[in-house]
Amino acid sequence: MKPLEGIRVLDLTQFVAGPMCTLTLCDLGAEVIKIERAGFGDDTRNETPARGGTSAKFVSCNRGKKSIELNLKDPRQKEIFINLVKISDVVVENYKPGTMKKFGLDYEALRQIKPDIIYAAISGFGQTGPYSGRGALDIAVQAMSGFMSITGEKNGKPVKAGTSIADVVAGLYGAIGVLAALQNRANTGEGQFVDVSMLDAMAASVMVNEIARYNVNGIVPVPQGNRHAISAPFQEFGTKDGSIMVCCPTNAQFKTLMEALGHPEIYEDPRFKEQKDRYQNKDELDAAMQPVFSALTTAEAAAVMAKYSLPFGEINKVDDVAKNEQLIARDMFIDVEDSKAGTFRTVGFPLKMQSMPYQPAFRSPALGEDTHDVMAQLLNMTEEEIAKAFE
Amino acid sequence: MKPLEGIRVLDLTQFVAGPMCTLTLCDLGAEVIKIERAGFGDDTRNETPARGGTSAKFVSCNRGKKSIELNLKDPRQKEIFINLVKISDVVVENYKPGTMKKFGLDYEALRQIKPDIIYAAISGFGQTGPYSGRGALDIAVQAMSGFMSITGEKNGKPVKAGTSIADVVAGLYGAIGVLAALQNRANTGEGQFVDVSMLDAMAASVMVNEIARYNVNGIVPVPQGNRHAISAPFQEFGTKDGSIMVCCPTNAQFKTLMEALGHPEIYEDPRFKEQKDRYQNKDELDAAMQPVFSALTTAEAAAVMAKYSLPFGEINKVDDVAKNEQLIARDMFIDVEDSKAGTFRTVGFPLKMQSMPYQPAFRSPALGEDTHDVMAQLLNMTEEEIAKAFE
Repeated sequence: MKPLEGIRVLDLTQFVAGPMCTLTLCDLGAEVIKIERAGFGDDTRNETPARGGTSAKFVSCNRGKKSIELNLKDPRQKEIFINLVKISDVVVENYKPGTMKKFGLDYEALRQIKPDIIYAAISGFGQTGPYSGRGALDIAVQAMSGFMSITGEKNGKPVKAGTSIADVVAGLYGAIGVLAALQNRANTGEGQFVDVSMLDAMAASVMVNEIARYNVNGIVPVPQGNRHAISAPFQEFGTKDGSIMVCCPTNAQFKTLMEALGHPEIYEDPRFKEQKDRYQNKDELDAAMQPVFSALTTAEAAAVMAKYSLPFGEINKVDDVAKNEQLIARDMFIDVEDSKAGTFRTVGFPLKMQSMPYQPAFRSPALGEDTHDVMAQLLNMTEEEIAKAFE
Repeated sequence: MKPLEGIRVLDLTQFVAGPMCTLTLCDLGAEVIKIERAGFGDDTRNETPARGGTSAKFVSCNRGKKSIELNLKDPRQKEIFINLVKISDVVVENYKPGTMKKFGLDYEALRQIKPDIIYAAISGFGQTGPYSGRGALDIAVQAMSGFMSITGEKNGKPVKAGTSIADVVAGLYGAIGVLAALQNRANTGEGQFVDVSMLDAMAASVMVNEIARYNVNGIVPVPQGNRHAISAPFQEFGTKDGSIMVCCPTNAQFKTLMEALGHPEIYEDPRFKEQKDRYQNKDELDAAMQPVFSALTTAEAAAVMAKYSLPFGEINKVDDVAKNEQLIARDMFIDVEDSKAGTFRTVGFPLKMQSMPYQPAFRSPALGEDTHDVMAQLLNMTEEEIAKAFE
């Protein structure tokens, strides 16, 4: 039995942040019913690259869910939504604040219908505060959180992450909020509203150390390229045929590294013996260490560091990652079936939990694929009633 | 009552990934007892910048927890740990796989002592697979996950995030795993082992869309600078006095933007009318739109887009973020007291939950500050027994 078996989630989300939240709940065993705009669906369905009219992104973020089409502006279909709320535990949405109120379906309305409903809303800036009404998407929040200002080449301009990190972090906090609210409901019998702001989420996690550091030393950090902000060696070194990331936060690791590479004299050098000294003298340290790596291929350097269990990383491209032996050994790649678009290979749930033998969701729903079955099976509607509601 | 009130967590973590997991559990109401190496503590205590010998990073990641010092190699202190396990719900560690087994304190050993214990282990590559024994730190995993290969300036080299995103994502999944395991324990009475790999976590969340896209089109993505991988306009535009991020994923938003900026002819242009066309013709679109933004200051452009609730973001520096009006309005900044090092301003918990009125943890523990009280109050040890165990 998966942890969330028996929990039903109505998923009004689209794009990435909301779907990542409900994907997590789905992987943990919840029944997730994605409610999509009639005739159109989640905007990400139409992105590229796609196969058979379904995008890779939609499948990645929505596998395992059911899809029903509802027009919440149609009174009959709105009533269907309300009937679904009555038999559900959780509602998740990531509309701009105020949207659900326009439909008459905000938390205050839904708790009249289902008093212990858990309602999570994920938005750019949260339900309160001066920016609440502003639209937001991932890169806007990356910019506003300060993340871009510390990312980029040394002496270069601010650069965004190449992917939606603010969406992902907010989505994971959304899942945490729903899990905590379920725990609270078990304790107290009460539901609640969970307000997740992407900007809050970035500030409290990805940016928390940078903000706290600035508050201590008043120094505004800038992009450092591929070097750690406060530790050395903790950076990229060029090799004979490429480059490699090397991380030595402790004295013991640094000693092991230099001995393993056959250069104990670099560790013995008084300029480099203590962690603080190494960062202080990082340019001299680079000058001493770079020739050691320049004499090795990436594979040779990796082999030495792996032998001594030192922390390092090859700079993989996405094709390397898609065939990475460690991810394969961990069963992280799964094949998802879309009844209209065929098979998509994507990445499964990352938590390996004993009591939850890994069972990836192998299906991605076509738009509205489950509308009929949900109406008939969960709401016990007759064929005539279904036809009438959707005529 | 907070959701995790009454739950006791033994926290054997250090650096960032593990502490972010237990920080989340702590904010949700769990009692978190951080078990630190006697006389030394979490390595991050000694990082810079610091105040009174305590680093900003330590405070950010460990506020609200208790700190006790234990030497797990000392038989008497190991017995104390075992006695703590008997009265705890959760153990979290982020040692390299195998370390706890060396102490005789791995999951198999601890479940003999406390059969329903929940044991979460966060590591670079997980407890299984060919890389399991390799050390890993955040930037190693950023490199190996493919994240660096898609981040950086256009035509530039791979760049890491300026902060520890792989740590944060793994820590959040760790919290999700513990919450799910608590739910499972409530359902079944059983504890379990939760295995979190930083590489799995990055692949399944931050990198999931890139991997799925590659699997559909076979194209290896490269850094795109501050432009979205598949949408336009979704990028940085220069302004009279700086630059701003603008995001228009839908036709409706693009129409509103161009009308708001007084240039409906750009929306009317057949090259730019549909989302797919805009990305296809993104260079022409840049050429048409850049002069519009060049004529405005960042503040003027922001004001127009805010008025129409369009998604955009100013590229803030960390000092801007530390005084951001939205984060202030959301009570996101909190002052944490360290009894030896004074006050630190950091960022609080991002989930706003009705049943959990926001009560930030205002205290950061000095090393071993709670050793005596935990021994006396939780383990009912006499002064003599305490003195003997730590002599």
